[in-house]
Amino acid sequence: MFESAEIDHHIDKQRYSAESEQLHQQLLAAQFNMLEAKQQGVLVVVAGVAAAGKGETVQLLNTWLDPRRVQTYAFGEPSEEERAHPPLWRYWRALPPRGEVSIFFDSWYMAPIMMRADGSLSEAEFDAALDDIRRFERMLSDEGFVLLKLWFHMSRAQQRKRLRELEANRDTRWRVSDADWEQQRRHREICDAAARALRLTSHEFAPWIVVPGSDERYRSLVTGRALLDAMVNEERAAVAEPAVHPVPPLDGRSILSQLDMSQQLEKDDYEPALLRWQGELARIVRHKRFRRHSAVVVFEGMDAAGKGGAIRRVVAALDPRHYRVTPVAAPSDEEKARPYLWRFWRHIPRRRMLAIFDRSWYGRVLVERVEGFCATADWLRAYGEINDFEEQLDEHGTVVIKLWLHIDLETQLARFASRQTDPSKQHKIGPDDWRNREKWPAYETAISDMVDRTSTQCAPWTVVEANDKNFARIKVLKTICERLRERLKID
Amino acid sequence: MFESAEIDHHIDKQRYSAESEQLHQQLLAAQFNMLEAKQQGVLVVVAGVAAAGKGETVQLLNTWLDPRRVQTYAFGEPSEEERAHPPLWRYWRALPPRGEVSIFFDSWYMAPIMMRADGSLSEAEFDAALDDIRRFERMLSDEGFVLLKLWFHMSRAQQRKRLRELEANRDTRWRVSDADWEQQRRHREICDAAARALRLTSHEFAPWIVVPGSDERYRSLVTGRALLDAMVNEERAAVAEPAVHPVPPLDGRSILSQLDMSQQLEKDDYEPALLRWQGELARIVRHKRFRRHSAVVVFEGMDAAGKGGAIRRVVAALDPRHYRVTPVAAPSDEEKARPYLWRFWRHIPRRRMLAIFDRSWYGRVLVERVEGFCATADWLRAYGEINDFEEQLDEHGTVVIKLWLHIDLETQLARFASRQTDPSKQHKIGPDDWRNREKWPAYETAISDMVDRTSTQCAPWTVVEANDKNFARIKVLKTICERLRERLKID
Repeated sequence: MFESAEIDHHIDKQRYSAESEQLHQQLLAAQFNMLEAKQQGVLVVVAGVAAAGKGETVQLLNTWLDPRRVQTYAFGEPSEEERAHPPLWRYWRALPPRGEVSIFFDSWYMAPIMMRADGSLSEAEFDAALDDIRRFERMLSDEGFVLLKLWFHMSRAQQRKRLRELEANRDTRWRVSDADWEQQRRHREICDAAARALRLTSHEFAPWIVVPGSDERYRSLVTGRALLDAMVNEERAAVAEPAVHPVPPLDGRSILSQLDMSQQLEKDDYEPALLRWQGELARIVRHKRFRRHSAVVVFEGMDAAGKGGAIRRVVAALDPRHYRVTPVAAPSDEEKARPYLWRFWRHIPRRRMLAIFDRSWYGRVLVERVEGFCATADWLRAYGEINDFEEQLDEHGTVVIKLWLHIDLETQLARFASRQTDPSKQHKIGPDDWRNREKWPAYETAISDMVDRTSTQCAPWTVVEANDKNFARIKVLKTICERLRERLKID
Repeated sequence: MFESAEIDHHIDKQRYSAESEQLHQQLLAAQFNMLEAKQQGVLVVVAGVAAAGKGETVQLLNTWLDPRRVQTYAFGEPSEEERAHPPLWRYWRALPPRGEVSIFFDSWYMAPIMMRADGSLSEAEFDAALDDIRRFERMLSDEGFVLLKLWFHMSRAQQRKRLRELEANRDTRWRVSDADWEQQRRHREICDAAARALRLTSHEFAPWIVVPGSDERYRSLVTGRALLDAMVNEERAAVAEPAVHPVPPLDGRSILSQLDMSQQLEKDDYEPALLRWQGELARIVRHKRFRRHSAVVVFEGMDAAGKGGAIRRVVAALDPRHYRVTPVAAPSDEEKARPYLWRFWRHIPRRRMLAIFDRSWYGRVLVERVEGFCATADWLRAYGEINDFEEQLDEHGTVVIKLWLHIDLETQLARFASRQTDPSKQHKIGPDDWRNREKWPAYETAISDMVDRTSTQCAPWTVVEANDKNFARIKVLKTICERLRERLKID
């Protein structure tokens, strides 16, 4: 992997001077075009061995580009707030809007590489971590980000020489730390781990580029050219229409048609059940084990299925300091400029907190699919992206609970009619709601696919028969309690 | 202050049942209207003595309102990330958009009250803290937030009785902590401090309401009615035109006309000076004292004054991991829905970081004033709000450096002309730029007022004569170095 990078490359001053001036102009023009078009962002991932010129090169890029529109993020040890969220949260948080160039120092690569080098990750664990990275980068690429991944390399001898030079100079001595010498000592292990990481995560959508670090002018030109290449990337080809589409059920039977929609609960049974399950939920979230966990509860359902009323019965059991309800409506302009999962990552709870979503990331495979707001390829890849997302939450200790509140067409009609006559509910109904009824069969197919493709072991769907509100509310509370007990292993 | 609240108030069950049902309907309707109008937000500040029913009441409000559009924030001990920013940062961060109701537990009041009660704040320090709060709330009120401040009170005897009741019940025992008994012991000191706080921060725009805590039904109705009142607040009166306006200089002389615009620096002097001051800046930000500080550098100036070029020379001296450049353009929709300073608080640096603003919060008293984008009263109050903001930064250890890059009309004309002929610069010039030239005298008045009114001891303006780019760039670097040395006390 690093053979060519250990050759003593060299560029003379004159050639550098001419080429760098030209690069500077080209980079500025490319940056301006990107900002205007807002079509794609460039993420420059900078990693490599100690003293190979990462910092200097990034500093140079900031002078070649307009530094007002480049953000550089250094990801060192995670802060307390970052540790209270899933590991990828801090990268999501820093994600720039499309149109900008951002530089991510160390990023998601350095921690696993260093942990593999010192043996604290087994090869299997390391490969699994790299596979998570691959899926994350695939999603970024599909969402309009060009990934430019640069590994700054030096041989062990070159690195030793460089560290000694830096230490000998009064102005640069501060840049050499004990950690650098420690890396020098373990150079081979680090390079072995890095070589594996680079091989397993070099894909057509995000190849690694190895930058030889020992000659300043050489590494500057290599980096500048690679960046220019990434920035003037031709207009992305229109998303191809996939060759294979999901097949809807041919006999009209779906998981929805199998539901027993007649289930109900009389008032006399409902009220004691409500108190019982609310009390149960209150006890669970106060349990000491919940302090190290958090929960995400997703409410989805047909219009007028009773999501709001069910949410009210859930939060009545909770201390308002420990939950947050996020109603999901149209995205803001800041949200539109980023991958679609970004706006949900913003509301991921820290430990001890419960986040309730009234509609969610499933909009992509429901309304966006049915209404044609995104390409088929986009909602098809969303199933996998959503599964990854929920798995990351689960691995961090966030219990993911997903509820589909289902009603039939007749019940919806009756509820719409009562909304129109009740002045306090008229605001809940509009022309869109009536129009959506015509697409009922298309929604049924989408729901069925959603449940099939995203009901995972760590985040299964629960379909709630909601023609009877009392029945639905109790089933919702019971499901939440049981899922929490199960994942938190509370008897 | 608390006399009436210690009476044994009581509401019977029947009356409560009727009134609370009506309140529930009215609150829902008011909430819906607020969300539609997006004109004002309601911030409910909840504070009070231990066990006086704060938590239960907030929980009740969350069932009376649609909980999907109420956010409750509990502000306990600040996190590590919060401590790395000025104290008000965490409240700014949580600030909801206009149209919503938010509940701030404890908020900015409990810390100073408890510190005064245990003697760790002197009376003078306490009063100063309250005065900061008053100005902050004044700004929130002017920006469209209704502040509903509720103090939940109980006498010492009532509190003791309540704590014992809670402890006696298996289901509520968890709610009584050692801290509560400690508060019981120091009840008098806490109430003395609170009474002073409530008196000094009760203003027509944000009066305190004392809620008697001992009877659950009584305190629920009081809270519900007060909240309804706050939410149905009539359309805010149009901002009154102030009676007194600043007087522009009558003889045409201003700080700008006094500048020696002929100053320049030859290339032979410029290049060594650039290296010298860049090296100086690099050393200062690496100084161990800067680790506990941060810096904000504001660049303002006429169009084509050379802000971009000057910023490039500054950042060339810095490690990109330690600075961030924020170009200020039109606000996003999320930003428009909040007080105008919110979008700058988002970019306030944590310790060790340097934040560079290319244009800034001064837009309010420059372009917004001159173009009439806001009412006179709005830009007039902005001077004080900006001074408060910068003082908060300074007190936290953030060095505030403000640079006005000034050119004269002829120089601007020459630069505009060269932009139009150079293809790589054409994007930098548009019809707005030409139009703005006609308003030059109005801008000169606005700049002059800005410097007069916001050049404070902790955050003075430096006016940079920028007809000659070399001269300006060196003066910029020198000013930044000298201000940092002075505030950080580095020799």
